[in-house]
Amino acid sequence: MLVQEYFRSRQELLEKALDKYLPPVTEYPENLHAAMRYSVFNGGKRLRPILFFATYEMLLGKKNINRIKRVIPVACALEFVHTASLIHDDLPSIDNSVERRGKPSCHVKFGEATAILAGDALLTKAIEILTEINNKTKAIKCIQILNRAISSHGMIGGQTVDVLSSKKKININTLRYIHLKKTGALLQAATELACVMYGADENVLITLSNFALNLGLAYQIVDDILDEVGSYDVLGKEPGSDTKSNKATYPSLVGLEKSKKQAEKLLRDSYNMIKNMKNNDILVEFVDMIKERLP
Amino acid sequence: MLVQEYFRSRQELLEKALDKYLPPVTEYPENLHAAMRYSVFNGGKRLRPILFFATYEMLLGKKNINRIKRVIPVACALEFVHTASLIHDDLPSIDNSVERRGKPSCHVKFGEATAILAGDALLTKAIEILTEINNKTKAIKCIQILNRAISSHGMIGGQTVDVLSSKKKININTLRYIHLKKTGALLQAATELACVMYGADENVLITLSNFALNLGLAYQIVDDILDEVGSYDVLGKEPGSDTKSNKATYPSLVGLEKSKKQAEKLLRDSYNMIKNMKNNDILVEFVDMIKERLP
Repeated sequence: MLVQEYFRSRQELLEKALDKYLPPVTEYPENLHAAMRYSVFNGGKRLRPILFFATYEMLLGKKNINRIKRVIPVACALEFVHTASLIHDDLPSIDNSVERRGKPSCHVKFGEATAILAGDALLTKAIEILTEINNKTKAIKCIQILNRAISSHGMIGGQTVDVLSSKKKININTLRYIHLKKTGALLQAATELACVMYGADENVLITLSNFALNLGLAYQIVDDILDEVGSYDVLGKEPGSDTKSNKATYPSLVGLEKSKKQAEKLLRDSYNMIKNMKNNDILVEFVDMIKERLP
Repeated sequence: MLVQEYFRSRQELLEKALDKYLPPVTEYPENLHAAMRYSVFNGGKRLRPILFFATYEMLLGKKNINRIKRVIPVACALEFVHTASLIHDDLPSIDNSVERRGKPSCHVKFGEATAILAGDALLTKAIEILTEINNKTKAIKCIQILNRAISSHGMIGGQTVDVLSSKKKININTLRYIHLKKTGALLQAATELACVMYGADENVLITLSNFALNLGLAYQIVDDILDEVGSYDVLGKEPGSDTKSNKATYPSLVGLEKSKKQAEKLLRDSYNMIKNMKNNDILVEFVDMIKERLP
């Protein structure tokens, strides 16, 4: 199966499920449900759910869209959490982003109050879905993994340090913490959740968790590099927007060359972690996709 | 056991547990953990956890502080959700309350960004705690109940309608929806969670859930009445603050006398629902406490 076909088909499957899980806009309070839907369906690439599917199908030993239907709730939960984090991150008091993927961000479109509450509701929806997993032991394990990724020691912690660090001089360790938690934590959760749903051994889970963590760090460094030297097309946002908002970037702290080397090393390490696994082609593709963004 | 002694001892037990579950302020990111703790320990009356304990001990047939230790996580989860909702409600774009129980609200003390993220982290912490319940079927059931109470069809829905209705003419049905969801939903969850943890029959759960719902509605109407005619001491906030912020109140829609009658009827109904249950003294006390606030 072609990689493009894999991404397209899993994306399509996911979109349908996301739609099914969200209350219709006709349901009271309509404004809140409209805001939730607006942010979930704003053209996201669905990287976290697809990484989850790809990991699960690698462990399964075959790509079979019928066999992943039972794990769809987990994929949707990942996307709802990711969307909630974007809504809250964009708020005026946090990153103050008025646009997201070329469209008005949630608080610009629906007002700040509704945006805050829509984020809260999506966090809640993510967990609600996970309680529907038949195997209760797996359901609890999944909720624990997702919660840890969201928590004050995960995504929320990373976002806090990020916002409190802007306009301040920070060192590379702080920036690494931000990357690790803001992006890494949820990607890690994606592969770990696949392992739990499949019933993989603990050592496989640890390897794939580290694979995703390295991938997340590499992604962030490449994003920082593109912010310095990239174009709108590759970056999907105005280049220089991080440096303009006085956020520390990897290149601003260690230089462009060292940043590139670091990204390459992380990608090499990620690849090495999975190179001996069977049916690893889509996971390898994730590594390659990030490599190709490197200028 | 005296009612005061019951409240004091359960409160003390709860405070210790809340402290144990929250990350210490010395843990990175310190600011976030300080904000979470500041809001959790701001002198709240802990009504939801105590209603939960009281319901559980009524079902148990005895007041025994050792027997409730195993359900403490559920009580803490209720309080974390309640605190998260207060932090987000107080935000400038929602209720814009600069004070909470005479102290600066979370966003005034820690900044808006940290307050939003502290609310998110407390919502997450609440669910995390529930995954620790040994009986996995009960754990899942508890998470479902709490999630429904938080969701866009619960507390978050109520808060959305509340904020979107301010400065607008609303009818009594909309105000009823706000009360039902904003306050009623979490009180209902408190009694339902007690029933699940005890293993009560479905019909007992429904009765106690309705009891809590009526109690919540009565509480809100009394609050609205006091906002009109009360004093700072009874209300715990500046009287007239709701009417000043152009929020519709029960008396403003149906008049003071009809509001009083409605509150009395709800309290009578609540009492009737539990009057034949054994060991109901603390639950009766909840009804009486609200009745005593009526001017």
